[in-house]
Amino acid sequence: MDTGYGGPITITTTVNQYIRANVAGFHIEDQLLTKRCGHLAGKKVVSQEVYLSRIRAAKAAKDKARSDIVLIARTDANQQHGYDECLTRLRAAQDLGADVGLLEGFKSKDEARRAVQDLAPWPLLLNVVENGHSPLITVDEARDMGFRIIIFSFGTLVPAYLAIKSAFERLKVEGITGVHETEISPRSIFDVCGLEEAMEVDENAGGEDFKGGV
Amino acid sequence: MDTGYGGPITITTTVNQYIRANVAGFHIEDQLLTKRCGHLAGKKVVSQEVYLSRIRAAKAAKDKARSDIVLIARTDANQQHGYDECLTRLRAAQDLGADVGLLEGFKSKDEARRAVQDLAPWPLLLNVVENGHSPLITVDEARDMGFRIIIFSFGTLVPAYLAIKSAFERLKVEGITGVHETEISPRSIFDVCGLEEAMEVDENAGGEDFKGGV
Amino acid sequence: MDTGYGGPITITTTVNQYIRANVAGFHIEDQLLTKRCGHLAGKKVVSQEVYLSRIRAAKAAKDKARSDIVLIARTDANQQHGYDECLTRLRAAQDLGADVGLLEGFKSKDEARRAVQDLAPWPLLLNVVENGHSPLITVDEARDMGFRIIIFSFGTLVPAYLAIKSAFERLKVEGITGVHETEISPRSIFDVCGLEEAMEVDENAGGEDFKGGV
Amino acid sequence: MDTGYGGPITITTTVNQYIRANVAGFHIEDQLLTKRCGHLAGKKVVSQEVYLSRIRAAKAAKDKARSDIVLIARTDANQQHGYDECLTRLRAAQDLGADVGLLEGFKSKDEARRAVQDLAPWPLLLNVVENGHSPLITVDEARDMGFRIIIFSFGTLVPAYLAIKSAFERLKVEGITGVHETEISPRSIFDVCGLEEAMEVDENAGGEDFKGGV
Repeated sequence: MDTGYGGPITITTTVNQYIRANVAGFHIEDQLLTKRCGHLAGKKVVSQEVYLSRIRAAKAAKDKARSDIVLIARTDANQQHGYDECLTRLRAAQDLGADVGLLEGFKSKDEARRAVQDLAPWPLLLNVVENGHSPLITVDEARDMGFRIIIFSFGTLVPAYLAIKSAFERLKVEGITGVHETEISPRSIFDVCGLEEAMEVDENAGGEDFKGGV
Repeated sequence: MDTGYGGPITITTTVNQYIRANVAGFHIEDQLLTKRCGHLAGKKVVSQEVYLSRIRAAKAAKDKARSDIVLIARTDANQQHGYDECLTRLRAAQDLGADVGLLEGFKSKDEARRAVQDLAPWPLLLNVVENGHSPLITVDEARDMGFRIIIFSFGTLVPAYLAIKSAFERLKVEGITGVHETEISPRSIFDVCGLEEAMEVDENAGGEDFKGGV
Repeated sequence: MDTGYGGPITITTTVNQYIRANVAGFHIEDQLLTKRCGHLAGKKVVSQEVYLSRIRAAKAAKDKARSDIVLIARTDANQQHGYDECLTRLRAAQDLGADVGLLEGFKSKDEARRAVQDLAPWPLLLNVVENGHSPLITVDEARDMGFRIIIFSFGTLVPAYLAIKSAFERLKVEGITGVHETEISPRSIFDVCGLEEAMEVDENAGGEDFKGGV
Repeated sequence: MDTGYGGPITITTTVNQYIRANVAGFHIEDQLLTKRCGHLAGKKVVSQEVYLSRIRAAKAAKDKARSDIVLIARTDANQQHGYDECLTRLRAAQDLGADVGLLEGFKSKDEARRAVQDLAPWPLLLNVVENGHSPLITVDEARDMGFRIIIFSFGTLVPAYLAIKSAFERLKVEGITGVHETEISPRSIFDVCGLEEAMEVDENAGGEDFKGGV
């Protein structure tokens, strides 16, 4: 949830909305409210004091709701203040009850490995952003390093972007997109999205809409 | 806007919301409210009388708002009732002031060509859905046939689907997505989304956020 | 949730959204999708078959989610088809697993009392709409009749409407609204809305925003 | 729009959304992002530099969209910094192209009158909040002082609050709300909301829903 979008009161509201929406977990970070992607340059973070007020607010909201939502404390301080400041911030967040830590923007694999060890046994999450500011770490490497959660935030956006771009380029030149050379039909996609289950819902309820099939 | 989501009053509300959102045009169709994709089987359409009440409501809303939003009358009757019924419905919609016609689900290229001629000079829109229920028609062919607007509703969904699926499959097997083999960085994507313009907005307003670059 | 906004598939989606939003209960009815207020004339209802497909869909969605959301089966058939048809519909809904019944638009107090007895021990909800199509029934009377839930759907809308109308009329004539003659300040209203609790949230999280009070 | 909800980029987005929604005008202010009501104590404002970056961003967004949306520059600095600072801020905002000024929280009628004169002929908006931190000013007084726009932000909320509270209290004690003693029926309220116009829309489109009346 980025910075939580305001002070402690706003963070409380945001966490409550996540809980009610059945979100499993969230990270909250120490960038300025006008934040940017963790893998751009020029990031600025708030003071540790303000950061910890965010963690405290999130933890209090979680506790008050008796929720098991996973509170992931993220720090973007590595770029501006370096590794040691990140460690200080994450340890303080752990002390306040954050469930998992996230040190965004590792400068090397060694730093990533060291962070897991320095904060053990507190679980760390690894955010893989290919072609960003950090070295590429594979799932196996992350497991070896001791990370407990891994996300690939950028990993499907790029393939989708390139594929869509390519379809548009072919459309511009050839007047077709290339989809006809695949075997994917509207029906294929609807099946992936649960068409069969939807038809069962209708039939089981006594609906008539799908008696004739699709 | 599918069927308009209800009777004339609901259609009026829907059209007004489209107009206020600066939508350029919309099509409204004659399927049952519990509609399905135009390229699935088993489609059912409402009576011509009900269909025309939808067109009338949409046209009245457009006129009352003095809007130039493009009202595209779509019929899905080809599957259930055949070509002639489509022609009857589209001509009636044209008489009520619809700006453009859309005969969904052509059974052949001949039928597509014929529809343009039968309804000329009323402009027709061609909805290309590769691997659906209609033959593939390229941009050049559509132009030759006399279509005035063409959309590829399915043309980027499939490439994106296949690319994302492939990334997930590689991630499962190799523990990487393949993005690192491309030259696309977070910065590349932000640039496509207007990062430079956003930085200019900030700088021109006297903001400090991007003085250090990204 | 009115009619559920479509067929069984849409009803399933609607019920799931209610459950995820922690709604405690909902009623679903047998009017046409283009429904109107239960206390207007000219109401039309769908066939019992379609009505029961709505109930079945809602019950199946509730069961699949293992939710204890209260499914209230409402019928608006009294105006069009009379009391006996309502009884038939509600009994069928009860058989399908609806938790509570709602017969909208009683024509007399006797009819209300009789409905509770005819459907006992199934709990009935009474919807009080003053100045509507039904006689006024007080909380005590409803309890005597055996109703288990009572709602006053119209009971605060009218006082608010009259008070706002009166304020506008005085503003037009005298150039003031009359609020200055009350003791209600912005602070009073914020207190009702939880200002103290919000300030505590901020303070407990270590925030600085309310150190100076309000 | 309070503070615009972020830095210049966010303000640009907000202004564009207002423009697309056909909003006629908006005020943007110099409180901290975690703002409070203008008639609570303890308000804090950002520096003039940051305030003016908000005005600049809003003006640039308005100009780029060639919109005539009314940009109202509001300052809440009176409580923290006094009248002279307000004047400095509003004059600077006027120089940047703000259309109207709003000095929130006048401490006296004299101050209100003086502000209009000090900033003339720039139009000022008066925000009347009864029982707040400012003296009550009537429409006639405001006109005499030279205000060009007047809003009563609090003027209907209080009557509605008191009326609803009273209905609930009577319901708790007597088991009725009191609505039955008025002449307001569901039909009355629907008429205020445009029921007749809605029925015309349906009838003109050839709909059948209201043939039987309501």
